[in-house]
Amino acid sequence: MPTSKIFVTFPDGTKKEYVAGTTALDAAKSISEGLAKAVLVAKVNAKLVDLSFEIKQDCTLTLLKYNEKQQDKEAQDVFRHSTAHLMAAAIKRLFPNAKFGVGPVVEEGFYYDIDVKLHETDIEKIEAEMKKLVDEKHPFVRKEYSKKEALKMFLHDELKSELIKEKGGNGASGNQTDDESSRVSVYEVDGFQDFCLGPHVPNTSFIKAFKITKLAGAYWKGDVNNVQLTRIYGISFPDKKMLDAHLKLLEEAASRDHRKIGKELDLFSFHEESPGAVFYHPKGTIIFNELQKFVREEYLQRGFSEVVTPLVYDKSLWLTSGHWEHYKEHMFVFNVDGKEVSLKPMNCPSHCLIYRTQTRSYRDLPIRIADFAPLHRNELKGVLGGMTRVRKFNQDDAHIFCTIDQLSDELNACMDFANFVYGKVFKMVYHLELSTKPEKSLGTAEQWNIAEDALKNALESNKIDYKINPGDGAFYGPKIDLHIKDALGRSWQLSTIQVDFQLPGRFGLSYEGADGQKHTPLMIHRAILGSLDRFIGILIEHFAGKFPLWLSPVQVRVLTVADRFDKYAYDVAKRYKDAGLRAEVDDRTESIGKKVREAQLAQVNYILVVGEQEVKNGTVTVRRRDNMIVGEKKAEEFLGEVLGEVRERRV
Amino acid sequence: MPTSKIFVTFPDGTKKEYVAGTTALDAAKSISEGLAKAVLVAKVNAKLVDLSFEIKQDCTLTLLKYNEKQQDKEAQDVFRHSTAHLMAAAIKRLFPNAKFGVGPVVEEGFYYDIDVKLHETDIEKIEAEMKKLVDEKHPFVRKEYSKKEALKMFLHDELKSELIKEKGGNGASGNQTDDESSRVSVYEVDGFQDFCLGPHVPNTSFIKAFKITKLAGAYWKGDVNNVQLTRIYGISFPDKKMLDAHLKLLEEAASRDHRKIGKELDLFSFHEESPGAVFYHPKGTIIFNELQKFVREEYLQRGFSEVVTPLVYDKSLWLTSGHWEHYKEHMFVFNVDGKEVSLKPMNCPSHCLIYRTQTRSYRDLPIRIADFAPLHRNELKGVLGGMTRVRKFNQDDAHIFCTIDQLSDELNACMDFANFVYGKVFKMVYHLELSTKPEKSLGTAEQWNIAEDALKNALESNKIDYKINPGDGAFYGPKIDLHIKDALGRSWQLSTIQVDFQLPGRFGLSYEGADGQKHTPLMIHRAILGSLDRFIGILIEHFAGKFPLWLSPVQVRVLTVADRFDKYAYDVAKRYKDAGLRAEVDDRTESIGKKVREAQLAQVNYILVVGEQEVKNGTVTVRRRDNMIVGEKKAEEFLGEVLGEVRERRV
Repeated sequence: MPTSKIFVTFPDGTKKEYVAGTTALDAAKSISEGLAKAVLVAKVNAKLVDLSFEIKQDCTLTLLKYNEKQQDKEAQDVFRHSTAHLMAAAIKRLFPNAKFGVGPVVEEGFYYDIDVKLHETDIEKIEAEMKKLVDEKHPFVRKEYSKKEALKMFLHDELKSELIKEKGGNGASGNQTDDESSRVSVYEVDGFQDFCLGPHVPNTSFIKAFKITKLAGAYWKGDVNNVQLTRIYGISFPDKKMLDAHLKLLEEAASRDHRKIGKELDLFSFHEESPGAVFYHPKGTIIFNELQKFVREEYLQRGFSEVVTPLVYDKSLWLTSGHWEHYKEHMFVFNVDGKEVSLKPMNCPSHCLIYRTQTRSYRDLPIRIADFAPLHRNELKGVLGGMTRVRKFNQDDAHIFCTIDQLSDELNACMDFANFVYGKVFKMVYHLELSTKPEKSLGTAEQWNIAEDALKNALESNKIDYKINPGDGAFYGPKIDLHIKDALGRSWQLSTIQVDFQLPGRFGLSYEGADGQKHTPLMIHRAILGSLDRFIGILIEHFAGKFPLWLSPVQVRVLTVADRFDKYAYDVAKRYKDAGLRAEVDDRTESIGKKVREAQLAQVNYILVVGEQEVKNGTVTVRRRDNMIVGEKKAEEFLGEVLGEVRERRV
Repeated sequence: MPTSKIFVTFPDGTKKEYVAGTTALDAAKSISEGLAKAVLVAKVNAKLVDLSFEIKQDCTLTLLKYNEKQQDKEAQDVFRHSTAHLMAAAIKRLFPNAKFGVGPVVEEGFYYDIDVKLHETDIEKIEAEMKKLVDEKHPFVRKEYSKKEALKMFLHDELKSELIKEKGGNGASGNQTDDESSRVSVYEVDGFQDFCLGPHVPNTSFIKAFKITKLAGAYWKGDVNNVQLTRIYGISFPDKKMLDAHLKLLEEAASRDHRKIGKELDLFSFHEESPGAVFYHPKGTIIFNELQKFVREEYLQRGFSEVVTPLVYDKSLWLTSGHWEHYKEHMFVFNVDGKEVSLKPMNCPSHCLIYRTQTRSYRDLPIRIADFAPLHRNELKGVLGGMTRVRKFNQDDAHIFCTIDQLSDELNACMDFANFVYGKVFKMVYHLELSTKPEKSLGTAEQWNIAEDALKNALESNKIDYKINPGDGAFYGPKIDLHIKDALGRSWQLSTIQVDFQLPGRFGLSYEGADGQKHTPLMIHRAILGSLDRFIGILIEHFAGKFPLWLSPVQVRVLTVADRFDKYAYDVAKRYKDAGLRAEVDDRTESIGKKVREAQLAQVNYILVVGEQEVKNGTVTVRRRDNMIVGEKKAEEFLGEVLGEVRERRV
């Protein structure tokens, strides 16, 4: 066969000619040696491949990196996946009888489920063995076999055999094809063979920094009737600096963990008797209520009307709304009076019922209905965690019923609301994402265009940077999501603004237009804080428990330096309380140093010390929880300052 | 047998000697002819009997009346029960094939379930026939038969036969005894015989005033698989004046019916999709939130801390609390993760869980935990009605954990809270009832004494009149209930204050006493408004929709007499709104007369008319919803007055 020529197009549009059979690595080398060293994996057209992949036809070629300067998500995943193989190879060396399950990439790193008994003390040994394998620079070698051959190779390993038999089951990564006649791929590193789609990094020396983070139990295929395996979690990076930075972040995150701080500050608790539901203690309830109050004040300004609605609804309602068909598995369903009912997972149908109680005219629109009703969604018990993954939560939820002419203004107003809350009040860094028409969708192309344009206009007229997620909209309409970055740089999706063409029609909602005809209103679903519970969890970690004054459970604590100043302390505290502040007195006969330290640990914003001098001068000596001394101030004057800080909701 | 003597003791303590066999009526006659005419029924020892009852042994005798001057509850019941027989006798005359079910006394009057087809037009005929029977002065005659004889008598009436066969089943009144060998009683009036315990009034002429109020359908024994009967409701009185007064009250009550007013004022709705649960519309939610805000302000003053708690709990919690054993049939129970869970009907167990999250010292007590969590109780669908009988409701619920030494002060404070709310703020007429140790109870006699004394002291030191209901306490402790009288004189039970010795022990709650030992705290369950939903329903009827300013959904409406005053009207409204009032503008091009009338119908408290003169003078011309004209006032000055009225929560 004569050597034929092929054309390869690079992402920047340049086209180069190669001999057919050139590997991706060779192509990289042909550009520069530096690139060839930095590149981890390649993408030929839309398919990820090893660098050793031979290019035989015209194609586009993307060379992916994962290092401090450039972190391609797909390269990062391959890197982690290769580390999982590396770890498995090390375990294979140390525990030759180990049987291997699956080893996927997860959000933080990777894990491998292995049938082997390990102790915490083994972790160091495995890491050392991994280091050896890295130093020995073993290549990741891809080979292809028929299914029959592969089964023979893995005869000794019943877990892998099971996966191969099923095909389409998970290798260490994605799915193998379902086609019975096709060949399967196997990757080998230092004698450890794995039934795996790949691709992988070229060799183990690329994996410069890693750490095994946790051992846990996991049933084979998640089924309690199967054998229990050891799930070994790890993280890995292309250099030690990145690993160290990540470990520091983890440590900081752990010290800010809202479950930890929630307990320390007595904000809330969780109980086995009601999994996935927060018990707000008095101090946590103050934060909850302050947020609700804040949102209510904005509702008054922004023309939202609050309603209070029931929590249990007949199946017929969910049939009408479509939740029974699309969402039932997330609902708590039970029987009342011999009929199926459900705790509501969303408020929209309740608001449609209220809309329908009156004849509506175009003059009545927009109607903006807000609701703090507790919602329940049946998350799997295994995924529940703290306040961010719960079964019961309260949203600052609202639905806007409007005409198509009002859509743009209403979306603008929603955008303004979100800007106000995150930009102006919480001073958080955030960005927005616009998700457009998915493949499977309801409604006409025209409706989608109008809605997407209205959302885009709202983003642009509010001068907000945004990213488009094509095809990621809900089936009933496009949406905008707001993502904040917290103090640790972690991203959280919070607000959502969704346009809905479907629900009003399903509920037969209408209004009389200026033309005297009946029309169907549009509906906007929107939440600004989203789940209050989740938001509080995020706030706790963002502020590391140091809440801004207006949200703080204890805003002021007055400390006495001796008993004889108790009366004065209580007088001051009373005046502060009467003015609406959360103030308390520490009149214990403890040293002032101890009292100050305890007030700081309790994250009290202002610590007012009173003694001889303060009583004489009608003053308080003010200290902040960060130990900054503000100094002696007239009690009334400082009260005014504090009230101003609360009123402005200063952050 | 020689005539023997017996001694009869009357309620005032006098003792009289009679010949054995003297009837109750004869005993009345021996006192005065007037008494003998007025008395309806007698009580021999604890047993209600006909006046024809022959007294054969020493006993206490109470002669009961039901007339305008004296309305003994038991006599009233007998009177109504006799009217049910009277009505049945009339129907028997008019519809000889009618079959008779049960005919009990109910809150408003009585009903009889009869297998007969009736139309509204038959009501008059039946009433006329009843009148005839009254004029004919038929006696109610009691006879006793063996069960066998009775069955033979009622052979033609399968409903009654079924009741006799079951015995212990309901006659027209109470239960017949279960003893197979015993005799059963039958009452006869004008040939209408009824299997019935009695007693009855002497004859039909006593029943001077009555009315059939409603026809409805009812299944025999409430079972949809049984035959459907006609339920005929009626009311009756010893004279026409009382009937007329009652009919007027009913009319007034109907015009104030909270369901009617709730709809007219767009406060709330009910929907088949969630039976027994209120959908508060924006205006109803304002009332709901204002009440909550009011209670929260008091909580702050009175040292209550609010919490927010989950709604779904595992069965294990209810086993611990005792609800599973004592209350399960009222709970919505379902399955999650293969375990039984329930929507909570009460908050107490949640608060015990929160108490238990910390080690408590006597210095931390009392701890007062308040919670507005929505509660769910499975009332039968048939008894649901408006806001007063619901399945989902929110209470201003709280639990106080305290030492036994603190009990008295805490109860005093609860009493003071109730006084403040009903006496000072709502200016309602109310009384209290103390319910003491029931026959079946938990806890020692000493505990009961302490608790009952503490409750009595609280009542007495607050100088509150109260009534004792001996043996009516909860099994876990004694309680005080507060009953208000609404504007129509109807009585409603609202607040409850209960002492509980049991729950803290069941949950293993403890505190470290001054003695360094572990002790179990006491618990007080208390709610002041009770169910907010029920309270709102009662408020609507009490005020006939004319809410005091602070609770009113629309406090101020500014009406323009012509378009050119719109700007001024909106300026005024804005200033009022910025000051925190609920103000709106009516700028329609309608006549001012029409606008005023509509504002009055909408129960807007203050109607501000603005035109030429008001714009010139910076004033508003104020009218009240009762059409009283307050006059022209400076806009700012009137704003100040209105704010004062809100602040003081004037009623």
